[in-house]
Amino acid sequence: MTGSLTVIGLGPGNPDQTTPEARAAIEAASDFFGYGPYLDRLELAPDQTCHASDNREELSRARAALEMAASGRSVAVVSGGDAGVFAMAAAICEAIEQDPISGREIDFRVVPGITAMLAVAARAGAPLGHDFCTVSLSDNLKPWDVIEARLRAAAGAGFVLAFYNPISRARPWQLGRAFEILREILPEATPVIFGRAVGRADEHMAVATLGEARPDQADMATCIIVGSAETRVIERKGRAPLVYSPRSTGRPAI
Amino acid sequence: MTGSLTVIGLGPGNPDQTTPEARAAIEAASDFFGYGPYLDRLELAPDQTCHASDNREELSRARAALEMAASGRSVAVVSGGDAGVFAMAAAICEAIEQDPISGREIDFRVVPGITAMLAVAARAGAPLGHDFCTVSLSDNLKPWDVIEARLRAAAGAGFVLAFYNPISRARPWQLGRAFEILREILPEATPVIFGRAVGRADEHMAVATLGEARPDQADMATCIIVGSAETRVIERKGRAPLVYSPRSTGRPAI
Repeated sequence: MTGSLTVIGLGPGNPDQTTPEARAAIEAASDFFGYGPYLDRLELAPDQTCHASDNREELSRARAALEMAASGRSVAVVSGGDAGVFAMAAAICEAIEQDPISGREIDFRVVPGITAMLAVAARAGAPLGHDFCTVSLSDNLKPWDVIEARLRAAAGAGFVLAFYNPISRARPWQLGRAFEILREILPEATPVIFGRAVGRADEHMAVATLGEARPDQADMATCIIVGSAETRVIERKGRAPLVYSPRSTGRPAI
Repeated sequence: MTGSLTVIGLGPGNPDQTTPEARAAIEAASDFFGYGPYLDRLELAPDQTCHASDNREELSRARAALEMAASGRSVAVVSGGDAGVFAMAAAICEAIEQDPISGREIDFRVVPGITAMLAVAARAGAPLGHDFCTVSLSDNLKPWDVIEARLRAAAGAGFVLAFYNPISRARPWQLGRAFEILREILPEATPVIFGRAVGRADEHMAVATLGEARPDQADMATCIIVGSAETRVIERKGRAPLVYSPRSTGRPAI
């Protein structure tokens, strides 16, 4: 008997940004795995069961979900944002690859969601309006020198940058170091957007220049967008400034 | 009298991937601008008016929408996918910046959507599971040498790549050239995903290796994801293969 495993992206937090497809997938599942705060966002029926676990234990959570699906249950693994962007989908695939017997036979599906950078970008204007790179600043799963090399390569080539997992208690210096590196490459005036809990009651948005941007403007739930040298800020009377990256570029790559 | 201008991302095409927020914004608008095929996806009331225009005339469409909003109407500009990713939001910001009087006073809002690469990635597994770059291969608005430099920088630093606007009748050779460049940097076995019309009746997904990938596997509506050297393919009996990029890397940047 084989069941199903669906990885569901809930979007950034505002229920109006959760797709009907994600909602239907939630209704169809019997068992739920995920980081507690994401499970808390679900409104489940009495016969639907939550299995909370630590956010740092992605692979063991993936294995537990897979095992339950293989036993015939309809299992959902929920992520905030999009499940495929620094979230659970890759961990599940890893668990499937390591479990070639049952893992590859279950009905596995990923339901996409609005990932944080899209919600933050929409609130700010259109900072992702030209080529961009999406980077996790967490060095839990990759060496810091790889991250540094990626930041240099991306900023040097004129990409806008979106940072996930920018800072945490266990990773206090990495974001400041990232800003330092970028200041060597990009103008001081380059816009930096800090977006937290976008679309929720406790939403916080801020725009700084790269010269002024400070790591303490972010926490682990903040998504940061650093413009390219061409990203522009439009000041508006009585409204937040708009930040956008023009579609066209005449500038050769650095 | 000033109206409102909302730029709305409809998602990749499946109505179940359009957010409730986008749906509410559509219901609230009086006048609609956008590329014909996106306008065709709307189910409008008799008192809602469509203003179709050519897809290549983004800035003139943006100006027309802005002008109508400034006259007091509730204007919506619709894009497929996310409005901020190679779509109308940046063109509207450009028009607002060029029109400092009325443009900055209207109530302007961007509603995010599921962008094509997220839908394609979800269908394939989790190919965007680690750091990735998103690049438009169109050289209509930027010189081709900038695009080449960005491809080299991103692939060399270990990013997964997502391509938008990969090919068209007017741009027939660029995708083939992009594959050539990437073959100089990445292993022949690197997975390449071609995703078209994901979630719609005419959906077409294909997975090739970089060594075998051909430009004629794509058209202008295809989103292409090229893995990094670490992206993996899991073969499954009787099912499409899963493609994913592991969350961790031990590999130093090239």
